[in-house]
Amino acid sequence: MARELYELAGSDPQRRFSPYCWRSRMALAHKGLEADCVPWRFTEGQAIAFSGQDKVPVLVDGDHVVADSWAIAEYLEDRYPEAPSLFNGARQPVRFINAWADTVLNLHLARMIVSDIPQWLDESHRTYFRASREARFGMALEQVTQGREARLPEFRAALQPLRVILRAQPFLGGAAPDYGDYAVFGSFQWARCVSSFPLLEASDAVHAWRERMLDLFGGLARHVPHGAP
Amino acid sequence: MARELYELAGSDPQRRFSPYCWRSRMALAHKGLEADCVPWRFTEGQAIAFSGQDKVPVLVDGDHVVADSWAIAEYLEDRYPEAPSLFNGARQPVRFINAWADTVLNLHLARMIVSDIPQWLDESHRTYFRASREARFGMALEQVTQGREARLPEFRAALQPLRVILRAQPFLGGAAPDYGDYAVFGSFQWARCVSSFPLLEASDAVHAWRERMLDLFGGLARHVPHGAP
Repeated sequence: MARELYELAGSDPQRRFSPYCWRSRMALAHKGLEADCVPWRFTEGQAIAFSGQDKVPVLVDGDHVVADSWAIAEYLEDRYPEAPSLFNGARQPVRFINAWADTVLNLHLARMIVSDIPQWLDESHRTYFRASREARFGMALEQVTQGREARLPEFRAALQPLRVILRAQPFLGGAAPDYGDYAVFGSFQWARCVSSFPLLEASDAVHAWRERMLDLFGGLARHVPHGAP
Repeated sequence: MARELYELAGSDPQRRFSPYCWRSRMALAHKGLEADCVPWRFTEGQAIAFSGQDKVPVLVDGDHVVADSWAIAEYLEDRYPEAPSLFNGARQPVRFINAWADTVLNLHLARMIVSDIPQWLDESHRTYFRASREARFGMALEQVTQGREARLPEFRAALQPLRVILRAQPFLGGAAPDYGDYAVFGSFQWARCVSSFPLLEASDAVHAWRERMLDLFGGLARHVPHGAP
């Protein structure tokens, strides 16, 4: 049975823009595991009902069905212990990096790029996306990102914990990337796949790190539809 | 030769209020290592000149002299590998927690409690502290903390990465604390030792964690001078 990863996609099935799905995609590559992508759109809950919930990523690996990016990372680590470790021995502190990306980084990024997303969706998913996200933010998506240029210093300041480490070493995981890198990179890749808004200065250690992440696994994350129309 | 830890103290030598020194104090306890405290005050650079720099903590362990809390943690881990591990195998992701505490948590806490510090210092150190910190913030310390009650929601929101994890498990390290816990706890203990301003709601998972941290090692951090006069 082929391995499959259900990933959020836009009207172009090659445009993948979920931070969580990118974590799983990178984790699979780190482990050297192939997986077919199954493009999935908002409102297609029925297509992943077999997973017992309604969000992607969902990994189908033979008889195993795993939802949630963190659960997928733990599953891959336990199921394929002979493949390169995602955690280099300790999962707990990587969990903090993952939680920081979930709660801090993704919120900052949403305020920068969420209004750039609808253009990549077909009409029915665009309507769903706008309604659900505008309810969450309590305002129009264009209002959420309004004045984003002026908020760049605040956004970049929030990246300081990353910067401190990435000035001293190439990856959060040290000399080589680990799941902490993928957890954070997923967020930046989400932004890159839907928006051309320049988030990072070229002189920023975080920028250089993102370039290194884009180069991993033969440019897996670089060579995908991204940016402006 | 006795082991010694140079720690920042107030006019009362028992009042220790450096987040970084508390990290080292807890790390020593975790390793089961005794160390005499040498109280050190701002402007006493001469007393630690032997360390080649002018900040505490400084650990003197036989012939070894180590400055900087992260370097002390790595030194203790390498020098005493048979004692309980501070990192459970992986230092890199703990470094991110450490960097988050340094850059995000300490700045948030300073904005909450920095004006409560001068009362604990004798006059010459009070003058130094006020002048150096007011230069850093560009305003009087009382202005820095002004309106802190109104800023509590923002402060507490910044703790969300901790909360996500501490709702699911007792320590950042999992079932037991590790250096990630001490890195973050040092900041809260700094605040507790100089201020009675209530930072956390009693129902917060971070509050319950702080209580657990205060209970560690026979109440090492609990039974010290703290709070209001």
